[in-house]
Amino acid sequence: MSYSALEQHFEQLHHLQHLGAICGWDQATMMPAGGNEARAEALGTLAVLCHQQLQDERLSDWFGEAKSEALSAGQQQSLAEMERSWRDATLLPQDLVRARSLAGSRCEHAWRSLRPANDWAGFLPLFEEVVALSREAAGARADALGLSRYDSLLELYEPGMRSQTLDALFNDLNQWLPGLITQVQEKQRNESVLQPAGPFATEQQKALGLEVMAKLGFDFNRGRLDVSVHPFCGGVSDDVRLTTRYDENDAAQALMGIIHETGHARYEQSLPAQWRKLPVGQARSMGVHESQSLFFEMQLGRHPAFLRQLSPLLNQHLGEQAAFAPDNLARLYTRVQPGFIRVDADEVTYPAHVMLRYQIERDLIEGNLEPRHVPERWDQLMQQYLGLSTKGDYKNGCLQDIHWTDGSFGYFPSYTLGAIYAAQLAEDMQQQLGRFEQLLSGDLAPVFNWLQQHIWQHASLLSTEELLQQASGQSLSSAPFRRHLEQRYLG
Amino acid sequence: MSYSALEQHFEQLHHLQHLGAICGWDQATMMPAGGNEARAEALGTLAVLCHQQLQDERLSDWFGEAKSEALSAGQQQSLAEMERSWRDATLLPQDLVRARSLAGSRCEHAWRSLRPANDWAGFLPLFEEVVALSREAAGARADALGLSRYDSLLELYEPGMRSQTLDALFNDLNQWLPGLITQVQEKQRNESVLQPAGPFATEQQKALGLEVMAKLGFDFNRGRLDVSVHPFCGGVSDDVRLTTRYDENDAAQALMGIIHETGHARYEQSLPAQWRKLPVGQARSMGVHESQSLFFEMQLGRHPAFLRQLSPLLNQHLGEQAAFAPDNLARLYTRVQPGFIRVDADEVTYPAHVMLRYQIERDLIEGNLEPRHVPERWDQLMQQYLGLSTKGDYKNGCLQDIHWTDGSFGYFPSYTLGAIYAAQLAEDMQQQLGRFEQLLSGDLAPVFNWLQQHIWQHASLLSTEELLQQASGQSLSSAPFRRHLEQRYLG
Repeated sequence: MSYSALEQHFEQLHHLQHLGAICGWDQATMMPAGGNEARAEALGTLAVLCHQQLQDERLSDWFGEAKSEALSAGQQQSLAEMERSWRDATLLPQDLVRARSLAGSRCEHAWRSLRPANDWAGFLPLFEEVVALSREAAGARADALGLSRYDSLLELYEPGMRSQTLDALFNDLNQWLPGLITQVQEKQRNESVLQPAGPFATEQQKALGLEVMAKLGFDFNRGRLDVSVHPFCGGVSDDVRLTTRYDENDAAQALMGIIHETGHARYEQSLPAQWRKLPVGQARSMGVHESQSLFFEMQLGRHPAFLRQLSPLLNQHLGEQAAFAPDNLARLYTRVQPGFIRVDADEVTYPAHVMLRYQIERDLIEGNLEPRHVPERWDQLMQQYLGLSTKGDYKNGCLQDIHWTDGSFGYFPSYTLGAIYAAQLAEDMQQQLGRFEQLLSGDLAPVFNWLQQHIWQHASLLSTEELLQQASGQSLSSAPFRRHLEQRYLG
Repeated sequence: MSYSALEQHFEQLHHLQHLGAICGWDQATMMPAGGNEARAEALGTLAVLCHQQLQDERLSDWFGEAKSEALSAGQQQSLAEMERSWRDATLLPQDLVRARSLAGSRCEHAWRSLRPANDWAGFLPLFEEVVALSREAAGARADALGLSRYDSLLELYEPGMRSQTLDALFNDLNQWLPGLITQVQEKQRNESVLQPAGPFATEQQKALGLEVMAKLGFDFNRGRLDVSVHPFCGGVSDDVRLTTRYDENDAAQALMGIIHETGHARYEQSLPAQWRKLPVGQARSMGVHESQSLFFEMQLGRHPAFLRQLSPLLNQHLGEQAAFAPDNLARLYTRVQPGFIRVDADEVTYPAHVMLRYQIERDLIEGNLEPRHVPERWDQLMQQYLGLSTKGDYKNGCLQDIHWTDGSFGYFPSYTLGAIYAAQLAEDMQQQLGRFEQLLSGDLAPVFNWLQQHIWQHASLLSTEELLQQASGQSLSSAPFRRHLEQRYLG
C-alpha cells in the first residue's frame, strides 16, 4: 500500500530530524566551542540527507497511488501534510536552493559583526542578494501554488494565511493601537512600580523556574530545562528541550521567558502520540505555536490571579521583598513603553513592531520596495506607530533582527497572529469555563485540559481556521485581542 | 579519482557517526527516561543508514580502481583502513547480521533481570542462540579472511592479533601471576591503610576531577565532563564527552575513574586533524585505546610521584585528612584482593579475570566448549587463578559481564593487552626520558609529548605492532608488565 510506504518513509525522516534536533540543542547548550566546526559539518550532512529523503523518486508515484486508496479521515489529512512537506522541499530548483542557502549564510554571518558596527552600507549588497533570490524563490512557489509571491512564503509558516487577511487585520489594529499605546502610557505615568532588587543567584532562579514549569504541567519525564544564549524550545515531542538564560539582575523577566517557552513545550509534549512521527502529528503552524507560548506568558502568566500564585514562590526562592507583592508584580509585568527593539517590547507595543516588518517584507517580496529604501521606510513607520525615529540608527532599526538575513520572509506575522489567536482562545475558554479571575487562582488543570482538547490533540489534523472554529465557533478576529488589551491596560 | 570518492563517502559516514555519538552520549547523560523509546528508534534508523552507506554498490569498484591510483603512503594506509571497515560491514550475509542483532538484543535485555535473579537456567537458551549465531558469523569471517574462527573475531577489536600470540602471552602470565598474587597478599597482610572518611559532596568531587583533568592536559575547549551510570569516553575527537559517576562515600575510586577516562580522552583529542574524518584517523584498536587509559590510571595515576602531586588537591577539594597523605594514598591505590568481579579488580588480579574469559570464549567460538558447561569451567578457572569458587553463584560468576550477551566475543583480551602495552610504553618512556620518580613529580608535558609522538599522532596509520616497534624497538612482550608489577607490589 503506497500510503503505508509513505508513512514509513516519513517516519524515517522524522528519526533523522530527531537526531538533528538533539544535536542542535546540544550545540546551543552543552557543546564546547572547539566542537563547532565538526558539528556544523555533521548537521550539514544530515540536512542534505533529509532533503534527499524528500526527493526520493518513488514519492511521486506513492502520492499518486495513495490518493485512490481507502484511507481514514486522519490518514487523508496525514497524506495531505506529507505531500505539503514534499512539495515545499522539491518545488524549487536545486540551484536556487543552494544559492539561497549560500547567500543567506553569508549575509547572516556578516550581519553578526555589521549590526554592532551600525554598518548598513556593508550590509546592503549582501541583503540585496538575499532579497533577489527570495523573490525568485517566491516567484517559483507562487507559480506552482497559484498564490501571490508573498503569500507563497507566508504559506511556509502559517498555511492558509493570505496577505489580504493580514492587511485587513493590521489595518484594523492600526486604527486603534497607536491611540491605545498613548492612553496606556498616560494612565501608567503616575503609577509607581517597585523594581525587584537583585542580584538573584542563577541556582535560585533555576529552582524557581523548575517549580513554575511543574505548576504549568511540564512533564519532566519527557523533557528538561537548560541554559542557552538564545532561549528556545527544541528536541522532540517525547523529549522536549527547553532553554532559558538567567540575568542575575533581572529574575522577573527570565521567569516570564520560562513561562513563555513552557507554553511551546506543553504543545509539543501534548501532540497526539498516534501521529507523532508524521508531518500531520506536528504543531499546526508558527502562529499556532506562538499562540500557545503567548497564552502561557500573556493571557495566563501576567494575569493578576496567576501572579497571586506566583508571588509566594518568588518570595520563597528569591528572598522576600515588597516588589514581589501581587499588586506590584501585576504592574511590573504590564509596563508599557515604546522602544526600538522588538524582542524587548511589551504586549501592547509588540504588534507595532510586527506590522512594520510585515509591510516592509511584503513590499520587498512583491517588488514594490527596494532593499536600499528599507531604512527610510523603517524610520517612517516607527515614527507613525511608536513615535520613535531610527534615522541613521540601523543597529536599533532595520538591522536588529536575524530573520531577513537568511531570507526568512513571511515569518514575522506569526508573532502577532499568535497573540491574536491566544486572545481569542482566552476569551472562548472563559466563556466556557468561567472568568480567569477564578480559573487562574487555583489548580490550572481545567485550563490545560481545554487547550489539550481544542488545540494540542489536533496537531496538524485541522487547519488553523478549523482550530479556531471548533474552539469557539468564531473565525479569526482581532476583536478579542483588542478587548483583552483594553481591559488589562485601561480597565 | 576513486580514492577521493572514497574519502568523501567515508567522511559522510563519519558525520553520521558523529550524530550517533552525541545522541548516544545524550541518552546516557542528559535524556529524561520518557525519551528513550523515540531515541532508540532514531539511533536504530541511523545505524541502518550507516550500514547502507557501507553497502553502497559503487564502493567495490572504487576500491578496485583506487589501488592503481598514485597515492601517498598515508593515503595507501587510509585506503586499507577504509577497505577494512567496508569488509567488516559487508562480509556477513544480511540475514545473519539481523539474526545476531535480534538474538543479542533479546539476550542482553533478559540478562538485565536474569543476572540479579542468579537465573542461569533462564539465561542459557538465549545465550545458546547468541553463541550459535556468533559461531556462524565467525565461520563466515574465518573463511573470507583465512583465519581461525576466534581470530576472525579478535580481528574486529585488535587487528593483527592472533590467539597463538595470546596463548603464549597468557601461558607466560599463568606461570608467574598466581604466585605473585599470593606474595603480594602476604606482603600487604600487615600493611595498615587509612580509608578516606566521607561523605564527599558530588560538587567537590567534580571540582577535584576537573582540576586533575586539566593537569592531565584534557582540552576543555574540545570536550566536557558529565555523569552517567556506566562511565565512558564518547563523542568525537573535536568534542570528547567523558563521563564518570560519583559515590559520596568513595571519592578515591571515582577520581581514578576520571584519570582512566582522561587517558582515553587525550588519545581521542590528539588524533591527527588531517585524518580525523576517515577510518585511518581513528584510534588503532581497543587494546591500544585501553593502553592509554591504563597508562594514565595505572602507570601514571597510581605512581607515588604522581600521588604526591595529587595529595594536596585531595586535601584542598575534599577537606584535609590523614588518608590523603601521599604514602597512604600509594598504599590505598595498590591494595590487592582477589575478588569475584572483574570491574572491581585491582591491577594485579585483573589479568586473571581476562585470561579466564579468553579461554572460555575462545573454546566457545572454536566449538570446543558448549554454553551449558560455562559455569563449571568458570568455577574451575576461578579456583585455579584466584582461589575462589563461584559454584552456584552465577550472578558473581559467568553472568557478571554484558559482553557475551550481545555476542561481543573477542573483546576481553583488549583489557590485558592494554595493560601490557602500557607497561611496555612506560618502560620505553623511562628509558628515553628518565625514571617516573622524577618525571611524574613536576610538569607532565614531556610525558604527554612522548605519547603524542609515539602513539596518538599515528592513529591507525601504523599497526599495533608497528606502534610498539617504533616506540621502543621492542615487539609485544609481557616482561615489562611483570617487571612493573614486581617492582610496584614487591619492590
